[in-house]
Amino acid sequence: MHFTSETSADGVSERRFVHDGVPGVLWHPAGSALGGRPLVLLGHGGGQHKLGSRDRAQACVARYGWAAVALDAPGHGERERTAQDERFATEIGELLAAGRPISAWVARHTAALAERAVPEWRAVLDTLDALEGPGRGPGPVGYWGLSLGTVIGIPLAAAEPRIRAAVFGLAGHASLLEPAGRVTVPVEFVLQWDDELSSREAALALYGALGSRQKTLHANPGGHRAVPEFELAASERFLLGHLGRTAAGTEAGATSPAGPGATPHAGPGAA
Amino acid sequence: MHFTSETSADGVSERRFVHDGVPGVLWHPAGSALGGRPLVLLGHGGGQHKLGSRDRAQACVARYGWAAVALDAPGHGERERTAQDERFATEIGELLAAGRPISAWVARHTAALAERAVPEWRAVLDTLDALEGPGRGPGPVGYWGLSLGTVIGIPLAAAEPRIRAAVFGLAGHASLLEPAGRVTVPVEFVLQWDDELSSREAALALYGALGSRQKTLHANPGGHRAVPEFELAASERFLLGHLGRTAAGTEAGATSPAGPGATPHAGPGAA
Repeated sequence: MHFTSETSADGVSERRFVHDGVPGVLWHPAGSALGGRPLVLLGHGGGQHKLGSRDRAQACVARYGWAAVALDAPGHGERERTAQDERFATEIGELLAAGRPISAWVARHTAALAERAVPEWRAVLDTLDALEGPGRGPGPVGYWGLSLGTVIGIPLAAAEPRIRAAVFGLAGHASLLEPAGRVTVPVEFVLQWDDELSSREAALALYGALGSRQKTLHANPGGHRAVPEFELAASERFLLGHLGRTAAGTEAGATSPAGPGATPHAGPGAA
Repeated sequence: MHFTSETSADGVSERRFVHDGVPGVLWHPAGSALGGRPLVLLGHGGGQHKLGSRDRAQACVARYGWAAVALDAPGHGERERTAQDERFATEIGELLAAGRPISAWVARHTAALAERAVPEWRAVLDTLDALEGPGRGPGPVGYWGLSLGTVIGIPLAAAEPRIRAAVFGLAGHASLLEPAGRVTVPVEFVLQWDDELSSREAALALYGALGSRQKTLHANPGGHRAVPEFELAASERFLLGHLGRTAAGTEAGATSPAGPGATPHAGPGAA
């Protein structure tokens, strides 16, 4: 992990890095170690990049004392595009212009991206575990990613025992059903009822296939990009209920380890 | 409205009444007027009765300074059963014993109950509006009822402009789709993924048919009677976000009108 820059604002440190050719960014409280701190993995949506969730990452670091990490997905952000990525960018424009349904096509392409992204995420977790020395790795890990972030996050959570809770949604495809059955951690699943990029039926089937004993589906009206702000806040509370907070947050409310989010394994309503 | 008894415990008054032959119960802060106070209508499930939500009613009165009212649905609680009600009780036992699917049959029977219950609820609201004199009726009204409580609540909310927000769920039937389209207030809809008494497809269709601009579906694994406690707590926060609280609650937290629930029309994540 090669760190390329570090900036700090309002008590939150933002460190860019490149890891085996994958550009990423790590946020944590300025001047404070990573060891034992809850860590949230932020998976971005299709067409976006590692800084798309910067505001949320900074807020979670400041409020809860978490660390957060984001990577550019294959073919996204600062990464080079393969010929396959270029074809995708061209074809999706053509399909949209022709008014043709694209959900199955998007699902197939993003599944191919996920096969490349899952080992990248796992390798970054390995490195973060060792970054500050043996036994000083991050604490409980959560995953938060919708759309492409879910297509990558479901096989990742199925393979990666360090992930303790996950927020998924805005996605669904037959190829995700098998890995979904191997996800066993608590999940909050976000669905947009009128999603034009992900079929409602496929998203419901994906929720149904999750192997988790605790899994909650939250659906709201509107299209793929219209997830209500209160729903994003609810998913933040959900992760808080499972990851807890540390005393290292920079706001007053984050300094109480006995706060409502301090109890691991609490239901989403408890936070 | 003929009050038949009044008891008080922990600052919460519980007053039984009979209104046009319908037994009911009214909760509010002891010694405190109804005028202007948020009021929640509690619709019970099939086979239950007006006191089934007593714990929740008492908690909401104590925490938020609300009033709450519950009625025995037709054929339930202290009410006489018609020949039709008796047939229902016999037949549902036979169908269950035979292991036959009963969701469509339950939906038909409960729809018949709703036709009788809706005017009863509206008449009780009229009386409560006038109980303490002109202009001294309850404040914003919310509705909270699952299963049979939803079968009654949807046509009630469609017809009754005093209802400002509603919690529904665990129900679905073609006969509810038309009134659901006339519901326009914010709704939180609770669904159990493995509901043995209400078909998943019918419940999803009912959520989809609601005319509300703001409507959120919350689904969890498990059967009809296994709604997680965190989900019930979430629906309480949802109503709080829309009804607000008063300074007349009996707990310390309820005395702050600037508390997080004090803002009407906030999203469910805001409370």
